[in-house]
Amino acid sequence: MRRYILTITCPDRVGIVAAVTGLIAGHGGSVLEAAQHGDLDTGRFFLRIEVVADSLPSGFGPDQLRAAFDPVAREFDMAWHLSDTDVPKRLILFASTEDHCVADILYRHRSGELDCDIPVVISNHEDLRGLVEWHGVHFRCVPTPSGDPVAKAKAFGEMGRVVEHERPDVIVLARYMQILPADFCASWPGRIINIHHSFLPSFAGARPYHQAYERGVKLIGATCHYVTAELDEGPIIEQDTRRIDHGDSVDELRRVGRDVERTVLARGLRWHLEDRVLLNGNRTVVFP
Amino acid sequence: MRRYILTITCPDRVGIVAAVTGLIAGHGGSVLEAAQHGDLDTGRFFLRIEVVADSLPSGFGPDQLRAAFDPVAREFDMAWHLSDTDVPKRLILFASTEDHCVADILYRHRSGELDCDIPVVISNHEDLRGLVEWHGVHFRCVPTPSGDPVAKAKAFGEMGRVVEHERPDVIVLARYMQILPADFCASWPGRIINIHHSFLPSFAGARPYHQAYERGVKLIGATCHYVTAELDEGPIIEQDTRRIDHGDSVDELRRVGRDVERTVLARGLRWHLEDRVLLNGNRTVVFP
Amino acid sequence: MRRYILTITCPDRVGIVAAVTGLIAGHGGSVLEAAQHGDLDTGRFFLRIEVVADSLPSGFGPDQLRAAFDPVAREFDMAWHLSDTDVPKRLILFASTEDHCVADILYRHRSGELDCDIPVVISNHEDLRGLVEWHGVHFRCVPTPSGDPVAKAKAFGEMGRVVEHERPDVIVLARYMQILPADFCASWPGRIINIHHSFLPSFAGARPYHQAYERGVKLIGATCHYVTAELDEGPIIEQDTRRIDHGDSVDELRRVGRDVERTVLARGLRWHLEDRVLLNGNRTVVFP
Amino acid sequence: MRRYILTITCPDRVGIVAAVTGLIAGHGGSVLEAAQHGDLDTGRFFLRIEVVADSLPSGFGPDQLRAAFDPVAREFDMAWHLSDTDVPKRLILFASTEDHCVADILYRHRSGELDCDIPVVISNHEDLRGLVEWHGVHFRCVPTPSGDPVAKAKAFGEMGRVVEHERPDVIVLARYMQILPADFCASWPGRIINIHHSFLPSFAGARPYHQAYERGVKLIGATCHYVTAELDEGPIIEQDTRRIDHGDSVDELRRVGRDVERTVLARGLRWHLEDRVLLNGNRTVVFP
Repeated sequence: MRRYILTITCPDRVGIVAAVTGLIAGHGGSVLEAAQHGDLDTGRFFLRIEVVADSLPSGFGPDQLRAAFDPVAREFDMAWHLSDTDVPKRLILFASTEDHCVADILYRHRSGELDCDIPVVISNHEDLRGLVEWHGVHFRCVPTPSGDPVAKAKAFGEMGRVVEHERPDVIVLARYMQILPADFCASWPGRIINIHHSFLPSFAGARPYHQAYERGVKLIGATCHYVTAELDEGPIIEQDTRRIDHGDSVDELRRVGRDVERTVLARGLRWHLEDRVLLNGNRTVVFP
Repeated sequence: MRRYILTITCPDRVGIVAAVTGLIAGHGGSVLEAAQHGDLDTGRFFLRIEVVADSLPSGFGPDQLRAAFDPVAREFDMAWHLSDTDVPKRLILFASTEDHCVADILYRHRSGELDCDIPVVISNHEDLRGLVEWHGVHFRCVPTPSGDPVAKAKAFGEMGRVVEHERPDVIVLARYMQILPADFCASWPGRIINIHHSFLPSFAGARPYHQAYERGVKLIGATCHYVTAELDEGPIIEQDTRRIDHGDSVDELRRVGRDVERTVLARGLRWHLEDRVLLNGNRTVVFP
Repeated sequence: MRRYILTITCPDRVGIVAAVTGLIAGHGGSVLEAAQHGDLDTGRFFLRIEVVADSLPSGFGPDQLRAAFDPVAREFDMAWHLSDTDVPKRLILFASTEDHCVADILYRHRSGELDCDIPVVISNHEDLRGLVEWHGVHFRCVPTPSGDPVAKAKAFGEMGRVVEHERPDVIVLARYMQILPADFCASWPGRIINIHHSFLPSFAGARPYHQAYERGVKLIGATCHYVTAELDEGPIIEQDTRRIDHGDSVDELRRVGRDVERTVLARGLRWHLEDRVLLNGNRTVVFP
Repeated sequence: MRRYILTITCPDRVGIVAAVTGLIAGHGGSVLEAAQHGDLDTGRFFLRIEVVADSLPSGFGPDQLRAAFDPVAREFDMAWHLSDTDVPKRLILFASTEDHCVADILYRHRSGELDCDIPVVISNHEDLRGLVEWHGVHFRCVPTPSGDPVAKAKAFGEMGRVVEHERPDVIVLARYMQILPADFCASWPGRIINIHHSFLPSFAGARPYHQAYERGVKLIGATCHYVTAELDEGPIIEQDTRRIDHGDSVDELRRVGRDVERTVLARGLRWHLEDRVLLNGNRTVVFP
């Protein structure tokens, strides 16, 4: 069922929902799903509404809805976005040598669980070419030679041009293991998603499973978050944990962790693709 | 913060939320929290809205809001209810000899986590009198002699009169272990909550931990549900499970189970007291 | 590291562990991992021991260990088995049209997480041929025409011959959706593993997600169990649950369920392949 | 059933289990439960065995078993301990004003779930006197005036004398909220248990729920650990997490957190009382 998904952020005040739903109802629009949140700390209001496209008059498409909505948005000082589910989101994967997250996303994409187009997977190694191409997705290898800052900068430049050209709605760092340049992060705010293999803020940085093993924690976790210039400090979208015990080696933490990583990433990514994640400073509002 | 909580069920159609929020906004009402659900199967719509009392004009209290809302409710054929958080809900506990659920509810009540009055705990045994009275709650023992149907019917008659007199918003069967007469259940639809010590529909009826042990399941659970005349078949409010293993005896299942029972009951009861649970046939809509 | 894995079941009595570990220590054997369980109900004792192969004298391989162990086994009336981790277990998959469990097992196999050989995947449809063959595994289609008992019996006969020829350590019904003939089940006791898409004993039989939706449960689950002639009644190896809510349609239960199914199956299968699951009547002892 | 619980830590080498179980079997001892762990990193071995007291010869009590065991212990350079379940462990609670952990432990103690004696609860405030005394436990108030180091040192001196006199097997900091002096911690290594209201190492130190709220995590947790001189850095016994969302205020995190805290503490404490927790450097081995 084709839907228009409207997401709104604005200062909280009386009458927002009445105005928005009044406008939609005024055009006969049927609301399939709606969720809202008023943040008492920041005074911001968040709203997500799914309108059934066919319930609107013939000829009243997304552009007409946007135009009709504009005065309301101005009145309430809204930052807003309208998606059309008939226009698939565009996803680019950045990968390295580990395949569990890439394989999982490609599987879910192929099975129809993740509704998006994947124009390209970019990796700094050739390892995953076969996997990616078997799924009918274009694979591009852009090596990022360690210890050679000039070559590395050039590589990120090349990746930046690919991204500029493809204009993705989201870039997923599927265990990419490289730190993106700050300006790269800044160019795509709220559009780059990373999966970190720990329950942040515990064990940020390198080798989180080793850190977890050393500390002797009884659960390990994974965190799906937006990437900002501050490493592992961006807004968290989703997290989960799994139980381990004293008998589990670092390798076994890795094995258990891979399952957490891919389910956490899959949930967070699906929510992003369905416009269910709104930014609230360095925190997120998630309407699952 | 004093709030009016409005819950609504009606046939789904265009304009419900616009009408309701329009009315509230028209009186300057500030919405603290709102959640909605349209059920595609039944065509029913469910809405829960918390309005900040102080945001409405002085002198415009719950009765005025009810009166103002009535025309909207008629227009949309709504079943609806308006609660005032300044009027505590009334809770009666039915208990027997096991104390873990009673102790937990009394603790949460005393600590302010469960916002309600508890006029009386009724039990068919004396065992819990000390615990209940230490919490400053009236304890009444109404024995239900097994094997004596006349005396038992008389006991339920006495309990019915107490309940009629107290007019509770909810009766909790806190491991009461007696089957209530069908007419008793019918008198308080959607107001009697039971905690069953299994993950329903598995292991309905007697001795669920024994049943679970015999079947060799790897998780046990608990279910909080509304009581209907059909034993263990009423609408489910909340459930949860915990992991067990081959080394756990029935007594150990009971120990683990007690923790699940009391947390599941506490969640379900709190949601009920906060008008977060709406009936949808034999299913529930829960806005947590 | 090469290991010999010894699993033992016998009547419980004094001195079993002393005898077994005494024998191993007497040959200089180093124990990497050991777990035991005495069942107070049945009086049965269960033991699993991993011996480091290289810690035994040169020339003292699995056959020598078996021969040395035989007198102890007789003395204590043991049913026992010795596996050599250098001899991979053999796994056959039975599949149909749904691919999530097959894809997950093939992925885990390829990534080294499941240590076994997969000589063939047998399916009653052609749908998964590409997926299976891309992983380098032989695919064989044996249709089981519904409504034609003679053709169906012939199909199971053909499958039985393949199985007899391959002599697998385990057959996994990866959402195979066909009921195996009773004599087929009887031929491979404790060797056929099914994944059922509910938390058994809830929602046995057909269309468990529909049943779960109708009943309005708040968690759904999956169950990995050995297949017996009684449908969905065999010994349970592993189960897990996931939270759902009133907004989830049957299709969304299926989506959430697929993740539970594949993780539950992966855990249960790995434990089976590592000889961590012992039968105790219709229950299992699992040493994870 | 009376049992002797033997816990052992020693350098790993061939023959430990054979020697220990051989000795027990040699006296006719029946083993109810046994668990072991060899740590490949440290080369340490850990063993816990429950022997049924009545299976040993009449007159062969814990002292005789200790004497018989001593040569084995010397041979393998063991640190070891033998508990007699007929001698209840002794538990002292340190509390402050928050009652949820204290109430939970007192409830579990009264219900028989925690097998121990509680000679005294020491608190720096009077608030919990009624609760503690209703449970028949001695309550002692030792104020720790903030901003007065001399008075505070005196208070800890007084508490130290009480502890010295009572010789507890374990001291539980049940949300005590005071930092114990380093020498106090050093006097009772592996005997002081704290419940920290975060998933350590995240949010160590003060106001963890505020920290969690600020960071925008999607799960909160609690950690039960042994206290060392390094704040929140001691060996972790048990942890768990619960899901929260963007709508939860700090107060709601506290409410959810209280449930995690008390279940995590209850599990960790029960394991300690049953000698199921062994120290392995700054990590723990837990045989649940």
